[in-house]
Amino acid sequence: SASMDSGDELRAKFMEFPYASAPQRDLMVELLSSVETHLGPSLHPCTLPSDVQHFGNPDGTAHASIHLRSGLPSSQVEFVLGAGINCKLPSGGALNITSLSAYLKPSTDAPHFLIELIQSSPKSLVLILDLTPRKDLISYPDYLKTYYEDTQLDRHRQSLQKLPEVRPYYSPSLYIRAVVSPTAIVVSIDGGERISIDEMIRDHVGPIAKEVLGFWMETCACSDRRTGESERSYLAERDRIIKTTTIEVDLGSSFPRLFGQQVSDRVLGVLREIYGE
Amino acid sequence: SASMDSGDELRAKFMEFPYASAPQRDLMVELLSSVETHLGPSLHPCTLPSDVQHFGNPDGTAHASIHLRSGLPSSQVEFVLGAGINCKLPSGGALNITSLSAYLKPSTDAPHFLIELIQSSPKSLVLILDLTPRKDLISYPDYLKTYYEDTQLDRHRQSLQKLPEVRPYYSPSLYIRAVVSPTAIVVSIDGGERISIDEMIRDHVGPIAKEVLGFWMETCACSDRRTGESERSYLAERDRIIKTTTIEVDLGSSFPRLFGQQVSDRVLGVLREIYGE
Repeated sequence: SASMDSGDELRAKFMEFPYASAPQRDLMVELLSSVETHLGPSLHPCTLPSDVQHFGNPDGTAHASIHLRSGLPSSQVEFVLGAGINCKLPSGGALNITSLSAYLKPSTDAPHFLIELIQSSPKSLVLILDLTPRKDLISYPDYLKTYYEDTQLDRHRQSLQKLPEVRPYYSPSLYIRAVVSPTAIVVSIDGGERISIDEMIRDHVGPIAKEVLGFWMETCACSDRRTGESERSYLAERDRIIKTTTIEVDLGSSFPRLFGQQVSDRVLGVLREIYGE
Repeated sequence: SASMDSGDELRAKFMEFPYASAPQRDLMVELLSSVETHLGPSLHPCTLPSDVQHFGNPDGTAHASIHLRSGLPSSQVEFVLGAGINCKLPSGGALNITSLSAYLKPSTDAPHFLIELIQSSPKSLVLILDLTPRKDLISYPDYLKTYYEDTQLDRHRQSLQKLPEVRPYYSPSLYIRAVVSPTAIVVSIDGGERISIDEMIRDHVGPIAKEVLGFWMETCACSDRRTGESERSYLAERDRIIKTTTIEVDLGSSFPRLFGQQVSDRVLGVLREIYGE
């Protein structure tokens, strides 16, 4: 049974992304492998119950995989979370979501990392790629300067949005709009005759995602900017809100519908416990 | 001489917006008159020196008018600032900026109001219209709910951005992107064969601007949500950063170039004193 799977088997299964398109799967595997190479030695193995690592709805029309690795006490990383969700749409198509988020501990104020690809048709993709700020950018102007202005992070957004296939995307959630940085890439991409979605991911989204993740791993996940005590409690409280709200907005609203109440409660219960720690 | 002008004459001169297009002028006059009708009795007259209320560069190629009225001690309004700036462009065209901003006191946490129209050619306009948050929307989720979600403020942005002439605008300043709310209207509008810029202002921008200002005057400027002491000092410090940074980003970077160092120093000196109070 699934509960007998070893950690390695579950990880291998997670890396399959069986429902994602080839370029989307290749990109996710490359990003996750890069995280494992650079940060793996400072992360615990995934300890999620196997029926939270892989699950589906009773009808077999929706599947999801979640892989979560917490940082060792010596690491600045709180945890890294990869997820793949697939479900059949009433229209006959399918919705494919793959995401990788990485949260840091309050021992550093460096931004979190987030990438999410939401593909609801072969011709259309929503991409969110951001280094999520840990502090209010108005009350802390130095933070804006250090992580967003001096780093010229906006150039990635600019180069992507020059392409005619790429348009700004407004999340229906005002919280999501508020939580991302002013350099966040939040776009919808329409594949067309000029460039297909697969080519967009391979040639444009992929290189930018890898560069932003590389920057994050080098500069943020291994930052030696250590925070003071009052700063740590500010960060811990703000991060708690980010983690719990993100999970509600991202999963809490759709999981019961996709996977049924029982599966949804089981999975969200485990994640809420980890997120609220 | 200009310094002999009476307050009424200076106000009348301010309301002329002699360089703005007719619909842009009409809209500004309507917004300012609405503010005077509803909030006028609780505002001091404009006490800016006359050579700060109206000034130009030595060449006569750039002109500006500024009108600033502070709130009485009993009012929640800190000050209301109207501005009109015009300058000839090397290309032969002209740049016209009109703006109205209204800042509240730390005795309330309700959002500030901002509208800015930047017209750099007869066929192109940048519009910023927002109720600027006073608190970090992540640390204070109730604030996001009260002022932005429950009010359905986003519907104005949605209805405007449905028009094919309207595209999202990314300010080159990351601070400006960070300071506005997630429902901010920050767009560039291209006049074309279907609808001219003048018609866009009259038929689409105007009605929305009047509705948002009306909402702000009713719900925010006269809010009876009174703040506690620690909240007031948080708001006062965050507002101080908003006011001083906005003036530097908005005016500090362009004023010396437009008006020469001497005029620029005089005007910005007076405004910095008021803003930093």
